Amino acid sequence: MLNPTRTIAELKELRDLTADQNGAQRVAWTPTWLKAREWFEAKLQELPVETHFDAAGNRWVTLEGESPKALLIGGHLDSVPNGGWLDGALGVLAGLEILRRFAEEFNGCPPVTLRLVDFADEEGARFGRSLLGSSAFAGTHSIEADRARTDREGIRLEDAVKSCGFDIDRFPEAARERRAAAAYIELHIEQGPVLESMNLPLGAVLGTKGVERWAITFHGQEAHSGSTPMNARRDALAAAAKLALEIRHIARRHTDAVCTMGSLKTFPGIVTAVVGRCETTLDQRDLDAGVLAQMYGEAHEASCRFAEEEGCTVEWSKIWSIEPVPFHPALIDLCEQAIVETAGASHRLTSGPLHDAAEVARCGIPTVMMFVQSLRGISHNKIEDTKEEHLEQAIAAFDRLASKAAAFVGE
Amino acid sequence: MLNPTRTIAELKELRDLTADQNGAQRVAWTPTWLKAREWFEAKLQELPVETHFDAAGNRWVTLEGESPKALLIGGHLDSVPNGGWLDGALGVLAGLEILRRFAEEFNGCPPVTLRLVDFADEEGARFGRSLLGSSAFAGTHSIEADRARTDREGIRLEDAVKSCGFDIDRFPEAARERRAAAAYIELHIEQGPVLESMNLPLGAVLGTKGVERWAITFHGQEAHSGSTPMNARRDALAAAAKLALEIRHIARRHTDAVCTMGSLKTFPGIVTAVVGRCETTLDQRDLDAGVLAQMYGEAHEASCRFAEEEGCTVEWSKIWSIEPVPFHPALIDLCEQAIVETAGASHRLTSGPLHDAAEVARCGIPTVMMFVQSLRGISHNKIEDTKEEHLEQAIAAFDRLASKAAAFVGE
Repeated sequence: MLNPTRTIAELKELRDLTADQNGAQRVAWTPTWLKAREWFEAKLQELPVETHFDAAGNRWVTLEGESPKALLIGGHLDSVPNGGWLDGALGVLAGLEILRRFAEEFNGCPPVTLRLVDFADEEGARFGRSLLGSSAFAGTHSIEADRARTDREGIRLEDAVKSCGFDIDRFPEAARERRAAAAYIELHIEQGPVLESMNLPLGAVLGTKGVERWAITFHGQEAHSGSTPMNARRDALAAAAKLALEIRHIARRHTDAVCTMGSLKTFPGIVTAVVGRCETTLDQRDLDAGVLAQMYGEAHEASCRFAEEEGCTVEWSKIWSIEPVPFHPALIDLCEQAIVETAGASHRLTSGPLHDAAEVARCGIPTVMMFVQSLRGISHNKIEDTKEEHLEQAIAAFDRLASKAAAFVGE
Repeated sequence: MLNPTRTIAELKELRDLTADQNGAQRVAWTPTWLKAREWFEAKLQELPVETHFDAAGNRWVTLEGESPKALLIGGHLDSVPNGGWLDGALGVLAGLEILRRFAEEFNGCPPVTLRLVDFADEEGARFGRSLLGSSAFAGTHSIEADRARTDREGIRLEDAVKSCGFDIDRFPEAARERRAAAAYIELHIEQGPVLESMNLPLGAVLGTKGVERWAITFHGQEAHSGSTPMNARRDALAAAAKLALEIRHIARRHTDAVCTMGSLKTFPGIVTAVVGRCETTLDQRDLDAGVLAQMYGEAHEASCRFAEEEGCTVEWSKIWSIEPVPFHPALIDLCEQAIVETAGASHRLTSGPLHDAAEVARCGIPTVMMFVQSLRGISHNKIEDTKEEHLEQAIAAFDRLASKAAAFVGE
């Protein structure tokens, strides 16, 4: 029988083992992470499962079913430094509980195969490359670019991986695990304020938003703040301020889009000088690639207009982008049903943050995520938290989703 | 006979003596400054004048007249590091030429006394305390606060002054030079773009603007740029951007006012986070104390309104302020007449930058300044420049002003 309170107890056990006064320290490719993975392996002893690491360091736990077609359940035990107790670990330990329930209910052999995966280095906290293990699984890895990444001490990613017993050159072999994968489900905390603001414990995730991330610099003319009349100024900050406000209108024209100016720097940046150069960043996200492209175009057009109005010039330089990854419509419906059956009401929402699920979905495996409410929308912080009643509902609803998804796989 | 081309030649001589490839290096209380002052002293040999330094290091050159009532003519030989050839030095050397002309025309004894002053440390470039010598003259010195100021090498202002032969504790004695002072005139480059934009060589200065200078910090809520919907944000940058734009409307409601946001800093200042804290600076200037107070009030009210609109709070912390110093109406009229007689047209403008003239005016001596056009409005830079034809007109007009001001003194 499913026992959600056991999962909560195990999450606390893991926290006690791997957190200090600043929060969770399960950073991938470090001793504390390895300790967490050993602790997890011990939990598997009583289960009729096969377990191994793939070439990219992802742990696979397989409960063989009558059909080889497999339902994958995922999460990650690694955390950011000073992280929370739920981000990633909730998915892995809820998955463990579901394997236990299936093993018990079907006497060790459910109708389809269930495979739990603990992806390696979802956070990218040490080397700045997130989704490392899942991208190897999905075949979207970038080994040549990643091998030479270094941490703050100058240690190379390649060497850190090696010290944990893996070989970065063999990462592509992780793609073998895709064989017979027929669906993927993942339970995660929301890491945002939406469900809390709606007073709902759970939501079905429509996909992960695409991201357009740019550096935008306005060039005006540095000038003396005392001797330069207002109409003789070419104020780069004024042009940037207009854009900082305009991106909010651009985002609000679309239901679910977000646009953020997270950094703005002024040069020379002194109280007695009109700003001659203003460096800003723009981060735009939406689940719809068309909306994303439209928002980028609107922001670009607006920046040129504002630069002209202020006698400035503007240049755009791409930082990074990723396309939106919509999840599978039938699985989204099943996720919603599971939530409604458990909690009475559900909400469909998109994920701003990326997840391993995005990598899995990109390689064509039907995928869905379930979100549980985050208190204050905060994660990547030791105060990250979710009410225990919501965690219990989450595990119960996710178990229902697993049953429905297993049936979907078996069709 | 007045010889403006001689003055231009002397300015170039001084430049050759005290500038390197980066510009003028006549920083007060340094060997190069002392060299400039020695060079200047040698120029006085042929004149029937008395010269001495006062207790604050200001050099006085007195051409005794029939009346002891004195017309003061001022400037400063010190420069910022990597400065221009005209800022300060033009006033001193134009004053020298006028002393020559008066001495010649009146056979060494004009109707009133003429006194040329080279103020010490107008720029405050080494110790961050501008108008040092003129404030001692005016009795507005702040010795106790200033004596312990240090330069980048940790040398104290008190000791640097001593190494040049002066004693900071005796600075107040410089006030003795105010005796019989009946008017003060100063010729300076504009250091701004107004006269150039009007295609005029010369302008009469109405006074130096007062300044309100504040640090303004908006506090919002740092949040994830991907998972935080637009309507759940408390974006400190948005509130600051509104203020950056609003201060321009506030300034433009007044003829001559300027408002500048010269520095804006975002925290945490990363591409993936909504700005939780935004630190800005505001510099407001006007010649009218009432306008200055009104602009301060309007900016403060607007900042509170914008903070509230964005779910933020705002705090103001004063950096510095100084009241406006209007010049003497009758002398402004005489200055304008002198300019019109020389160049055909004049313009009345205010000075955003401070000058020694502001200290002189504050202690009740009727004062006016004349500005000559600056090319591109640039100063405090080696590319600071003014057309030679404008310099010649400036010296001629300033000489006319001296005659008119001497008559004013004699009334």
